[in-house]
This record gives sequence, structure tokens and C-alpha cells, in this order.
Amino acid sequence: MDNGAVTTEPLLPAALAAIRPLDAPAMEAARRRQAELTKPAGSLGVLEDASVRLAGIHGTCPPPYPDEFVVAVFAADHGVVASGVTPWPQEVTGAMVENFRRGGAAVNVLAAEAGGTVVVVDIGVVGDVDEDAVVWSRKVRRGTADLAHGPAMSRTEAEQAIEVGIGVAAELVDAGYGVIATGDMGIGNTTASACLVAHFTGLPAEEVTGPGTGVDDATLKHKTDLVAGAVGRLAEDADPIDVLAEVGGLEHAGLVGLVLGAASRRVPVVLDGVIAGAAALVVRALAPDAVDHCFAGHRSTEPGHHAALALLGLRPLVELDLRLGEGTGAALAFPLVRASAAVLRDMATFDDAGIGS
Amino acid sequence: MDNGAVTTEPLLPAALAAIRPLDAPAMEAARRRQAELTKPAGSLGVLEDASVRLAGIHGTCPPPYPDEFVVAVFAADHGVVASGVTPWPQEVTGAMVENFRRGGAAVNVLAAEAGGTVVVVDIGVVGDVDEDAVVWSRKVRRGTADLAHGPAMSRTEAEQAIEVGIGVAAELVDAGYGVIATGDMGIGNTTASACLVAHFTGLPAEEVTGPGTGVDDATLKHKTDLVAGAVGRLAEDADPIDVLAEVGGLEHAGLVGLVLGAASRRVPVVLDGVIAGAAALVVRALAPDAVDHCFAGHRSTEPGHHAALALLGLRPLVELDLRLGEGTGAALAFPLVRASAAVLRDMATFDDAGIGS
Repeated sequence: MDNGAVTTEPLLPAALAAIRPLDAPAMEAARRRQAELTKPAGSLGVLEDASVRLAGIHGTCPPPYPDEFVVAVFAADHGVVASGVTPWPQEVTGAMVENFRRGGAAVNVLAAEAGGTVVVVDIGVVGDVDEDAVVWSRKVRRGTADLAHGPAMSRTEAEQAIEVGIGVAAELVDAGYGVIATGDMGIGNTTASACLVAHFTGLPAEEVTGPGTGVDDATLKHKTDLVAGAVGRLAEDADPIDVLAEVGGLEHAGLVGLVLGAASRRVPVVLDGVIAGAAALVVRALAPDAVDHCFAGHRSTEPGHHAALALLGLRPLVELDLRLGEGTGAALAFPLVRASAAVLRDMATFDDAGIGS
Repeated sequence: MDNGAVTTEPLLPAALAAIRPLDAPAMEAARRRQAELTKPAGSLGVLEDASVRLAGIHGTCPPPYPDEFVVAVFAADHGVVASGVTPWPQEVTGAMVENFRRGGAAVNVLAAEAGGTVVVVDIGVVGDVDEDAVVWSRKVRRGTADLAHGPAMSRTEAEQAIEVGIGVAAELVDAGYGVIATGDMGIGNTTASACLVAHFTGLPAEEVTGPGTGVDDATLKHKTDLVAGAVGRLAEDADPIDVLAEVGGLEHAGLVGLVLGAASRRVPVVLDGVIAGAAALVVRALAPDAVDHCFAGHRSTEPGHHAALALLGLRPLVELDLRLGEGTGAALAFPLVRASAAVLRDMATFDDAGIGS
């Protein structure tokens, strides 16, 4: 893999132009095959729907069985931590990147369990981060500005971060990964997520702002007011990338690019929690067909995630009250996506088994 | 493995005597360790609870990592099909056993996906079934009698079927499987399940009787009336094994034994759907501590399964609108149970990572 410097090529227009709707004939073929397999029609529930989506993404039935997957963890810092939205110090972002590098974090353990690889993309950690095969240096800037007081980043920086994500997706697809899962690390990033969700769903801040990885009631109230204030600066019909620049995070922008890049290559994405859900709302505004290339890995306890998934029209595969991020929910969901492909590929039909259907 | 004839040793009293409550010190150690790992306390939600349960079952922290699991599919026929509760002909039970043998069924594919093995126990299929390494002959009788008109089986047969299950559990534990998942196959078995759930929960038949793998409204009404009538023959305080004999199935009895046998050996059980849930209600009545050795693999769309899990106090790991049985939901859930063990074993602590918690 080329872990080189941030690209400056115009990847975004090309990615947007390459994104297509799901392939209807392949989906219909998958539905027909599900009805021929030795089980009552529909009895595998959401797993059948997942197999149909996979067929639609790849344009073939049965779709390829994804031997390998990768969790791309986008890490960045958030200026809004200066406004007191979390008890965790900003240094934890960089420390967790080192934990990912050493394989000690939850996402490392859960990805390994499912046969997956973890790649970390430093897209905006404040401190210096060494590059190696696991941690890729793609810093756009050293953390965002405090979104409580003005734009988190410039539009140019947001576009640059999106293109980082597109580039990462391309490298991972070229490396042979059949499924890409989203991950994230960034102290303060549930605040930016709540802003994005509030804007795109139109719901009030108090309905989409949650405790993240843990704040007390007073901090939650402060966080909610802060979200309401920041979202209030946005016009209802603001350009999606301007919204991202104003109230988003660098990892959100990176994830927007990751999803667009994967969808442009017809590679399925498993979304993790509320950060990915918020990013997917930007994706939806830019290229609705790209959302159809996504699976909702899980539903977290964050209220904004519920709202985001509802608008995205995605049903979560796993609901285990996770609220960690990192890509943990996506890693837990990957085996379910893979299982749906195995069903289409490996199950006997009623004809095979000599059973009248 | 000894695939010999049905045992006549008194396994049930010995199993009941060997079942212990979960180990409280090991559970406390698991909770403490979860709080030291590099994540906000509680942020892995249900996965943390699962790891604590595993520690309690095994009496050690971290609990052993389950490399291998097995789905034990108990297959039997039901006399009640003569009363018209399902559109599927009885011959499908035996045909599906052959499908399991050849590896073409959903449970084969999903177990293989998760690194598991499938064993089928013929505990009461009407037709002749050959024995081999996959399919074990443990026929107690050739299908039950029609529970619409009288006892499904005798109390002696119910006890015999429970002891088959205990014996199967012992063989599987001795063979080295660290987790046992329940499976079932039996045309008509959601009717017997609804009877068991109605009796043990005290809920009316119409709240716990569902369409199973697919019936029309008229058949569902007939099925519900039939369940109500059968349950009406039971005294509220009837002996649990008498209940099983009156309205249960041979595979239900086998699963009761499987759970009791596994719990008596301190081996975790992953329950599948409504058939296992109904059997677990009998387990609960015989040995409540045995239920604590179980994970609810999933929650099916059958209303009786919701009611059973509520009474059992088990939260399902997977909710994907499955309604197939066979052990498919348990097979999909096994990776989540294993992942919970991996978290306890493999994640770094805050001390390891040099992060102040």
C-alpha cells in the first residue's frame, strides 16, 4: 500500500460521477434464489435482505464471498473539547492511536475475532503521530477549531479530508479488501456528530445529543445548548460540505470520503456508530445512491444514531447497547454480512435436496 | 464419540444435583477487569454482560476462550400435524435431516461460517434415519401422539428423551466443545412450543401462538384454539416433566436434557429460537440455576419466544427477524459470545496503554 502524502487530485467529482444505483436484476436474482433455498421463504429475515443488498452492490448473484475486511479508523481531534463537552482529555485521541497500533484496543480485538484488519488514518490528531503499516499519516490539520465559536474548519480543508477518505478507500479496495468497515477515534466527536444529525434531520438538539462515552447531566445540558447554538448558524439549505466544515470533524469528512470512495468502486461499507451515521447523512446529501452501498453495523445508545439511521433507512444488524465507537460495532456486524453471502452461495435448494417447496 | 444406543442410566438426578449457581467471585473479577480495559466503563454494553456471564459459568476470569462450538440439532416429529397446524408435510422433518447430513441447510452454512460443527440427534423422527458421524440415532419413539387429543408422550418417554439430551451434552463436552448451541427440526414444533410457553408464562394462547414458518390466518386461529385446549388440560402447578409429556415434543425434551447436561458440566449454552426458549422454561422449572448458563442467541418473530425470553430474563444477542429454527440464530450469535471472551483476554488495560482512566 502507498502510505504517501495527502493527494491533491480532484477525487471527489470522479467518485460522485462513478456512484450508481444498486443493480436491480442482481437483486431480483438474489430474491429468487433465496426463495429456492431449503427454508421457508423469508425465514432468514434481515440476513436475506443483506444478501440482496450485497448482490445489488456487486451487480452479481451470488455476490462474491468477502474473505477479508478492513476497519479504517479515522482519528482526529476536536477544538470543541475546549468548551467542556467531555471529561476525557484531548491527549486520549493520540494515546488511543498508539493503542490501536499495538493491537490493544477493543476494535483490534473485535476485528481480529472476525478475521479483519485495522488501519488507522491520522486525519487530524493534534499531536505528532508516527506512520507505519497500521497508522497512516494523512493529517489535514491539527484538530478542528472550536465549533462553538465558529467554523470547525474551512471548506477547502473539509474537501481535502473527504479526498483523503476517497484515497484511503481506493487503496484498501486495491489491496483486495471485499468489505470496508468504518471506525473513528476523536475525543469530542459525538458533539460534532450531534450537530450534523440535528442539521440533516431537522430534529432539535435535545433529541439528538447524548452522553457519548459518558458525561454528567450538567455537561449533557451544556453540550446540548452548544449543539443548538452551532446548528443555529447553518441555513436549512446550506451546502452539505459547508455544513461539514462548519460543525463537523475531520474524521467525519474522512468517513464521507471513505463511503463515497467505496461506493464508487462498488464495495460494501459497514457503518459503525453515531459518528459514521452522521457522516453518512452528509453522504446522503451528496450522493443518495452511495447510502445503499452501506450496512448499518449496529445501533448505539446515542440518540442521534437512532435519528440518523431512521433518515438513512438502514436497519442495524447488531443492537448491543454499544457506545464505544472505534469501529467496534461494525466489526461485530461483519460476520453477519459475510454469513448472508455464504447463505446465497452454499445452501442447497429444494431441488438439490429433493424436497417439494 | 460414542454414538451408541439410548442410555438407561439415571442421568437426570445426577445432572440436577451437579448444577450450581454462577460463580460470584469470578463474575466480580470480570466486572473489575472490564472497568480496567481501554474503553469507557460499560461502553461495550451487552458484550460486557456476556463476558461476565461466561466468567460466572466457568468460575474463572478471564474465562476460557471457546475455540470450538457445536450445534446439537434435535429432530423429531409431532402427532399434532394430523390436526392441520402447518402446511408442511411431516416427511420434511426426515428430508431436512438428510439435508443437514449433506451440509446443505442454513444451520450447516451458518455454523461453518462461525467455525462450528453440526450434530443431528434423531430423537423421534417418524421415518428410518441412518446413523453416521453427523446424525446420531437416539430415537425414543417415532414421533409424538397428537397433543390435541391427549398426551404427546408418556412421562417415561419424556424422561428418557431428557436423558438422551443429558447424554449428548456429556459426549459433546467430553469431545472438547467449549460452547453448545441448541438446534431443532420438527414439523409442527412451534405448536408444542406455544403450549409450553402458554403454560409456564400463564399467558393466553393467542398471545404466544404464532405463524411458525408460515401459516395463513385461518390456520393460525385453529392452531391457537388447539393450543388453548391442550393447555387447558394442565393443572397450573403440574409437574414440569408431566407438562412436557402432555404438550411438548421429543426435541423439546432432548433440549431440556442438553441444557441441564451442559450446565451440570459448567459449559455455556447458546439457545436458538422459540423451541429452545420453550424447552428452557421447563429447565427453569426444574433447575433455575441452569438458565444462568444460557445465552439467548436471538429473538425470533414468534410471539411465544418474546414471552419465553422475558420470563427467562435473557436478552437476545441477535434480532434479525429470523423464524427458521435449526439452530441458525444460535450459530449467528456464537461469534458474539466468543468475542466477549476475547475482549476480556486480549484488550489492553489503561495501565498497559499508559492512559489515565
